Amino acid sequence: MAQKNVLIIGAGGVAQVSAHKVAQRAAEFGDLHIASRTVAKADAIIQTLRDKGHDMPFTSHALDAMDSDAVEALIRQLDAKIVINVGSAFINMTVLEGCIRAGAAYIDTAIHEDPAKICETPPWYANYEWKRREDVAAAGITAILGAGFDPGVVNAYARFAEDEYFDKIDSIDIVDINAGSHGRWFATNFDPEINFREFTGTVYSWQGGEWKENAMFEVGREWDLPVVGKRTAYLSGHDEVHSLAARYPAADVRFWMGFGDHYINVFTVLKNLGLLSEQPVTTAEGLEVVPLKVVKAVLPDPASLAPDYEGKTCIGDLVKGSLDGKQGEVFIYNVADHKEAFNEVGSQGISFTAGVPPVAAAILIARGVWDVKKMVNVEDLPARPFLELLGEMGLPTRVIDATGDHPI
Amino acid sequence: MAQKNVLIIGAGGVAQVSAHKVAQRAAEFGDLHIASRTVAKADAIIQTLRDKGHDMPFTSHALDAMDSDAVEALIRQLDAKIVINVGSAFINMTVLEGCIRAGAAYIDTAIHEDPAKICETPPWYANYEWKRREDVAAAGITAILGAGFDPGVVNAYARFAEDEYFDKIDSIDIVDINAGSHGRWFATNFDPEINFREFTGTVYSWQGGEWKENAMFEVGREWDLPVVGKRTAYLSGHDEVHSLAARYPAADVRFWMGFGDHYINVFTVLKNLGLLSEQPVTTAEGLEVVPLKVVKAVLPDPASLAPDYEGKTCIGDLVKGSLDGKQGEVFIYNVADHKEAFNEVGSQGISFTAGVPPVAAAILIARGVWDVKKMVNVEDLPARPFLELLGEMGLPTRVIDATGDHPI
Repeated sequence: MAQKNVLIIGAGGVAQVSAHKVAQRAAEFGDLHIASRTVAKADAIIQTLRDKGHDMPFTSHALDAMDSDAVEALIRQLDAKIVINVGSAFINMTVLEGCIRAGAAYIDTAIHEDPAKICETPPWYANYEWKRREDVAAAGITAILGAGFDPGVVNAYARFAEDEYFDKIDSIDIVDINAGSHGRWFATNFDPEINFREFTGTVYSWQGGEWKENAMFEVGREWDLPVVGKRTAYLSGHDEVHSLAARYPAADVRFWMGFGDHYINVFTVLKNLGLLSEQPVTTAEGLEVVPLKVVKAVLPDPASLAPDYEGKTCIGDLVKGSLDGKQGEVFIYNVADHKEAFNEVGSQGISFTAGVPPVAAAILIARGVWDVKKMVNVEDLPARPFLELLGEMGLPTRVIDATGDHPI
Repeated sequence: MAQKNVLIIGAGGVAQVSAHKVAQRAAEFGDLHIASRTVAKADAIIQTLRDKGHDMPFTSHALDAMDSDAVEALIRQLDAKIVINVGSAFINMTVLEGCIRAGAAYIDTAIHEDPAKICETPPWYANYEWKRREDVAAAGITAILGAGFDPGVVNAYARFAEDEYFDKIDSIDIVDINAGSHGRWFATNFDPEINFREFTGTVYSWQGGEWKENAMFEVGREWDLPVVGKRTAYLSGHDEVHSLAARYPAADVRFWMGFGDHYINVFTVLKNLGLLSEQPVTTAEGLEVVPLKVVKAVLPDPASLAPDYEGKTCIGDLVKGSLDGKQGEVFIYNVADHKEAFNEVGSQGISFTAGVPPVAAAILIARGVWDVKKMVNVEDLPARPFLELLGEMGLPTRVIDATGDHPI
């Protein structure tokens, strides 16, 4: 069977990582195509691939990914069999539609969002993606939702605990700590618009068999994690809570994100002034403008942080449960290094951890291991093949369990 | 001689105060006209005048005050003899031009600004207004610059010290403390665009016979003032330093403005992120927008603060000098009350202190006392008639000198 052509949609820092990872694993795939609204950004990524000595066929394309006809046409034109959607969070549904029509596998790394809405009712996946489950199955394509790091790898960590540790899971606490430093006065690690949108709405967690609502920064807890040490993380809204709660309804599912006081202060000022609003305001001169988009425009481009980024990230799942009635807990985690990520693929660590997993998912589809011909979240798939492949690709998984701290 | 018609240009909170003060002193003037880009705002002010029972002839007009032909035409049409410019800081030069051509007296309350520039080289008045001195004299009109509270009344306080206390002035420290509370999370007391523009540039002070440069919030000092007590104020850039330094070149001239930690934090976040910039940025969607104008759009309208504003302001000059070789100092000040201002004219205290003095100046022009037929700053005019009239109009002056704390 011919190798499968891959189409990456998006050309930001995460797309660059995914492109490098596809190129490093060229033997697993056919051709690599990169499509972006701005074709020059795709060309720039291809140049970084050539700079690293990669020589598989690379082609850039201009694409309005909000236009499902255009997505379908491009997939057919390129005979792409796997689409990795690492573009903005607003294009999922149009890209998925194009994949359904053209018969290509679909992988994304973050949940769909409507630009005009913040924080819809839980579970979030049910508002958009899961409505297409029957269509995906009918089309006979594989659609893997949320296959970045978080969501994505952390979902696999939960599944790993299910597969290898417990027959009953009581709680899943996902903790995301970035202990790195970019040296700027303030910057977000990924698209500021998406970053802030995550934190302006209600914080949903799944506890005691129901959705709990909190405000951002209302619930904080100090964690003591490998390598990064003691850090305060705050109960936050995040995609994976909304799928894990469906697979593990009897467990408490919470997401914790680490923030320093400086981030919280800047966020609080911007939010309280109304500058994080996705609703347009009108200036005294009569110009209608969305404040959040102006905040995005003045902040550093996250991709520009990479060269100076130092330090490490630690992201993992503390899973508590029981096996044959015996209680236990396990912390499953990865530590990534910003500088190593930059040296390898020219991106900072946050982009690296998000951009590698969808390529691992693409490889598992190409190999047939994960080519399940339906729509799934990552925890619906066997975890060990994914985590072992990620280990080979630069995101090793470690476990702290009753026997100590060791690789899986 | 017929009473002089007055034209107020601008229809914000300060204009409202000025309109009420003209109406209260109707016998001093002819008709009152109010012109604004948005005529509905002028109509709204006129309604508040009628609500208070005033019945002199009031007329509103739509005016683009950046168009000097339009200003000239309106002055001629109305036979206005005195123009009170309390519109935006960007219109001074076009309004002045209209007055020169039409032969009307000109009064403003703040220095001219170019929208595209922040903090030009000192002395600021020399960049725009003072270039028209000869034209004003040739036209035989009176132009009184900076006749609000600060600049304005505080310039008269310095002149009062010169007239009644010292033959040599060593230092003039102007201190502006607003100890009121508006009950909002954050708001500026006047146009946010002008408010922030004051503090984003270099802080110029006149010390040791030359211009000194500092950054905003670099130099703070605790003051202990009447009524408001101990407050921290910061060396700030302000209009009046730029004219007082010309009249008192041997004195140190400094302006101090009180800020709470909350204001400083919000300001620092906005400034460091680039959101106070007057230079346009381009959003990801290609929209060109000036960040500062978006910040203005999301902040509360200063006029909306009035109903809930409580507490007092204290603004004064600490003047040190000598008389016949004997050293001394005097603190000349006013205390205003936000709630009393609202009850009287429907505006908060900051607008009140700014809007009353230009009307006092207009009365002194109408009476001939200040009708000097040239361009002057307030310190160039005898202070006592102005301060006594202000006392009658709700802004009494007090003095702390060797004999104690007493009215002038």
